[in-house]
Amino acid sequence: MRALIFDLDGTLVDTVYAHVVAWQTALEEAGIPIDGWRIHRRIGMSGGLFTRAVAREAGRPLTAAEAEQVRARHAELFRALAPRPRPLPGARELVAALRNAGVPFAIATSGGRPGIEPSLRALGIGTDTVVVACGDVSRAKPEPDLFLAAAARLGASAGDCYAVGDAVWDVLAARRAGMLGVGLLSGGYGEDELLRSGAFRVYRDPAELLASLDELGIEVHERR
Amino acid sequence: MRALIFDLDGTLVDTVYAHVVAWQTALEEAGIPIDGWRIHRRIGMSGGLFTRAVAREAGRPLTAAEAEQVRARHAELFRALAPRPRPLPGARELVAALRNAGVPFAIATSGGRPGIEPSLRALGIGTDTVVVACGDVSRAKPEPDLFLAAAARLGASAGDCYAVGDAVWDVLAARRAGMLGVGLLSGGYGEDELLRSGAFRVYRDPAELLASLDELGIEVHERR
Repeated sequence: MRALIFDLDGTLVDTVYAHVVAWQTALEEAGIPIDGWRIHRRIGMSGGLFTRAVAREAGRPLTAAEAEQVRARHAELFRALAPRPRPLPGARELVAALRNAGVPFAIATSGGRPGIEPSLRALGIGTDTVVVACGDVSRAKPEPDLFLAAAARLGASAGDCYAVGDAVWDVLAARRAGMLGVGLLSGGYGEDELLRSGAFRVYRDPAELLASLDELGIEVHERR
Repeated sequence: MRALIFDLDGTLVDTVYAHVVAWQTALEEAGIPIDGWRIHRRIGMSGGLFTRAVAREAGRPLTAAEAEQVRARHAELFRALAPRPRPLPGARELVAALRNAGVPFAIATSGGRPGIEPSLRALGIGTDTVVVACGDVSRAKPEPDLFLAAAARLGASAGDCYAVGDAVWDVLAARRAGMLGVGLLSGGYGEDELLRSGAFRVYRDPAELLASLDELGIEVHERR
């Protein structure tokens, strides 16, 4: 295993709870009240699946105009709630350590541009890092496309990659991609949910992952 | 088992995620950034324990003035995020069914007045229902005092009560009170966390609990 592919929200930046409240408020304003915990457990899945789940709760399909209105309002509310996304503990240090050690890594997120830009900036991730986002592939998580596209751009085979995420969607996408999944608790899932969906290991947050990279067989002795 | 004692936030009203974001914002404004998932897993514990946990994350004790400032700001932000707390699916129906069937029930919450009033109103809970809140006992959850005070006011022995909540703090308090704990997923904990802390059963939300009361040996045939 020589490359690491990271989810973004809840994995490297502390944005899950703001996303939940922004989705919940946007949906409620559109006359579609949905429980917070049900939204929470769907953060990070593809927008299409999310919309279908919402339609099931609402008891009817959403019109394209409704879906677009909710999406736009969510983006607006999210920017207001989390104007400066905060890196999770150890996230910046993890990115820097991998970069310094020459370990290939990438970001693969169901989120889209431009929404993810402030998070990338907060992490110090520039154009030299592979970032695969929602619009870059046809199917988002739990389909494997985002992780596979990231591996391809790193020049790594799937079997050589770990996929790191906070949601069961990340772990399922890792399985489908033929990668080992690593779970983080920093998105608010329970440890058991991540293990049952197939995570190889579960850490609290990027800081604990960084301190435990040897458990994944990855060395980050700096090569300065 | 003849009486039911309910937690409020995350158990009967869908307020957990708004509480998380309100606490996180209030703490960040005070210069104490704390991860959302760490706040989430502490919702429902006593304010004293919460403050101590915050101090540990901050690396220093909070002054009384800081703690008061954060508390006041949280209350303000929470009111803005959740001006009309939404009953969880089945919550109003559950309360009505127990009332109609003459099954004794009460609310026991680590929250305090007047913050909890809008939630009680949303549930249709008036002065005829026993409500034990933070200021009514000296120690909140996971200590058993709230649940024991509720049982005493219902005239029920602890062994005759189920305590229903969404957090491990509810389940731990139930154990310490000598009650059977019942977990709900509607506060965003994982099922396994609730079972491992000792929950007798876990349901999705109040609607599933209402439909499953026979599993607790409680009959709610209406006596009209």
